[in-house]
Amino acid sequence: MDTIVSEKALRAFMERVFEKEGFAAPDARTIADVLMQADLFAIESHGAQRMMYYHKNIASGSVNVQAVPEIVRQTPVSALMDAHFAMGQLSAAAAMRLAIDKAKATGVGIVCVRNSSHFGIAGYYPLMAAREGLCAFSMTNTGPIMVPTFGREMMLGTNPLAFCMPADPVPFWFDASTTVVTLGKVEVYAKREKPMPQGWTIDENGESCADAQKMNRSILAGEMGGILPLGGEGELHSGHKGYGLAIMVEALTGVLAQGLLSPEMQGAHGDHTSHFFLAFDPAIFGDPAEIRAQMSRYLQMLRSSEKLPGHDRIFTPGEKAFEAQARRMREGIPVEEKTLLELRAIAAELGVEAV
Amino acid sequence: MDTIVSEKALRAFMERVFEKEGFAAPDARTIADVLMQADLFAIESHGAQRMMYYHKNIASGSVNVQAVPEIVRQTPVSALMDAHFAMGQLSAAAAMRLAIDKAKATGVGIVCVRNSSHFGIAGYYPLMAAREGLCAFSMTNTGPIMVPTFGREMMLGTNPLAFCMPADPVPFWFDASTTVVTLGKVEVYAKREKPMPQGWTIDENGESCADAQKMNRSILAGEMGGILPLGGEGELHSGHKGYGLAIMVEALTGVLAQGLLSPEMQGAHGDHTSHFFLAFDPAIFGDPAEIRAQMSRYLQMLRSSEKLPGHDRIFTPGEKAFEAQARRMREGIPVEEKTLLELRAIAAELGVEAV
Repeated sequence: MDTIVSEKALRAFMERVFEKEGFAAPDARTIADVLMQADLFAIESHGAQRMMYYHKNIASGSVNVQAVPEIVRQTPVSALMDAHFAMGQLSAAAAMRLAIDKAKATGVGIVCVRNSSHFGIAGYYPLMAAREGLCAFSMTNTGPIMVPTFGREMMLGTNPLAFCMPADPVPFWFDASTTVVTLGKVEVYAKREKPMPQGWTIDENGESCADAQKMNRSILAGEMGGILPLGGEGELHSGHKGYGLAIMVEALTGVLAQGLLSPEMQGAHGDHTSHFFLAFDPAIFGDPAEIRAQMSRYLQMLRSSEKLPGHDRIFTPGEKAFEAQARRMREGIPVEEKTLLELRAIAAELGVEAV
Repeated sequence: MDTIVSEKALRAFMERVFEKEGFAAPDARTIADVLMQADLFAIESHGAQRMMYYHKNIASGSVNVQAVPEIVRQTPVSALMDAHFAMGQLSAAAAMRLAIDKAKATGVGIVCVRNSSHFGIAGYYPLMAAREGLCAFSMTNTGPIMVPTFGREMMLGTNPLAFCMPADPVPFWFDASTTVVTLGKVEVYAKREKPMPQGWTIDENGESCADAQKMNRSILAGEMGGILPLGGEGELHSGHKGYGLAIMVEALTGVLAQGLLSPEMQGAHGDHTSHFFLAFDPAIFGDPAEIRAQMSRYLQMLRSSEKLPGHDRIFTPGEKAFEAQARRMREGIPVEEKTLLELRAIAAELGVEAV
């Protein structure tokens, strides 16, 4: 049974928690805003559900509450940040802010971050840029969960790629892992004790595996087998493309930022991740209002195109998320019972008012 | 039966043809170099096999031999080029050259091109940058062949994304369409009269279709049905991610360059395509030799990781291509009989020496 919590109450709770964890009020607001964006967009795996994960990382010292991310190298179009194991949301938001400012000054800004930590939904950061009329990318490496094409050892992370471009009535907002599914989906099937569809994971012998509980356990334990790349097993349905995209994300994050690589990280989410942010101003290519109108027109062409029998809508990436946000702002956010118990446990432990 | 033609002979033939078509000698060399790179990398669909396609486009005036691509807008980090319907290889190579020069001067260069034409393999252009120590992306829209998730009307192109980063012994070279397979693969199955695997295409009713001849015909005729996005049908195996990546490519090409959009183009390959090139210098983030060594080390980790039973190698993107190149430089390039007849027909028509 889900409990409905208002947007305002859940946000205030998260801010209370992160302030009590030791973050300055503006930083607590930033972290809460990233998590709230996930819950508002109905990406529950990355919202309140992750509070316990962050709480444990802070308690263990894996995340350093006192860390001040440092710019170690900079040009007018770029920067390299060492986050010194700060909360990922803080280093990532600061890095994207810097990329936006550089893009406004020069046309383009690229900022890489190393020694960061789990930064929430990748799509939060390009949306910051789109709100200011810019186009932007965001990527991160994570702990290893994906096997290479023809491999059975987890060597690549979820390695998401997000991109956002201004459009009306909602931006084009794309945020996708380069795995066929995220670990979160495997967890959901494991919790519900349901078999997974074939083609999501392979076991230690390289056999397609539908047993979610077994795979969830083996992935968290770092055993052989893992989640397949986007495109699935082998090359028949182009699994090598998802594998290649994941390496590209690793190249632009762990390698370029000279941080840890996915297979060098502890845990499925990854402890010391690296990020990549790129923002550019469409005004360097033409009238931004015309480019925005053209993008909006193209997205509408997609929505209006011929549907499959039994389907009355074609969605464009981001549409479902913004519709969920409008609904959840009005009606509140459903929080799962297990998550609610976790939030109450955190509140009790820290001595703050529960949600 | 394939005929083996030496690299030197095939290249010289292509150069003769393009000179006779009316291109200046350096331009003929550039076009031939892009096509030869495809044949050397064993991407036969984009090499000599495409000579007849280009020949027809030149004859019909769809490609303008006299066109001089024009820079219509420029900043130190960016440019917008109007190709005036030049050969795609010429506008693309000039645009990537400009992006490389800007990246060397400022750290990063982005160049968009509109009113171009089919530019060959997307991966040719980032490889130009990698040879000079830079990292680079290349993307293009094409004529419509892909259906949206939940749709049955072709609204998106092959829309490939290519990325290259220096590494040893071979660069990381990724070049992938955002469809589950290219139209070229459907053509190969149609020629061989073999059924395709399920999950590549859907027919006019939205049913998965294995009939390659039917689908090849209906795609070329612009009828309902088409090739599925990377990830396949619906959302179960994340077809919406391939669909989203394809829209991202369209956003960065047709929309940003303010050219034609895929569904507005004639023909499956697309007549008046737009391109996107981005190059950056890894030196803005650290010692380029160290970054290159780290990338090489990561790729070797992937190759050395645990293999599936029955597989003795894990490849990294580009490895197969560079191995094919070494072999074909030594042993020559296999040319299919049908292609050889086409090359001879072009030679006879233009009055140049055949291959």
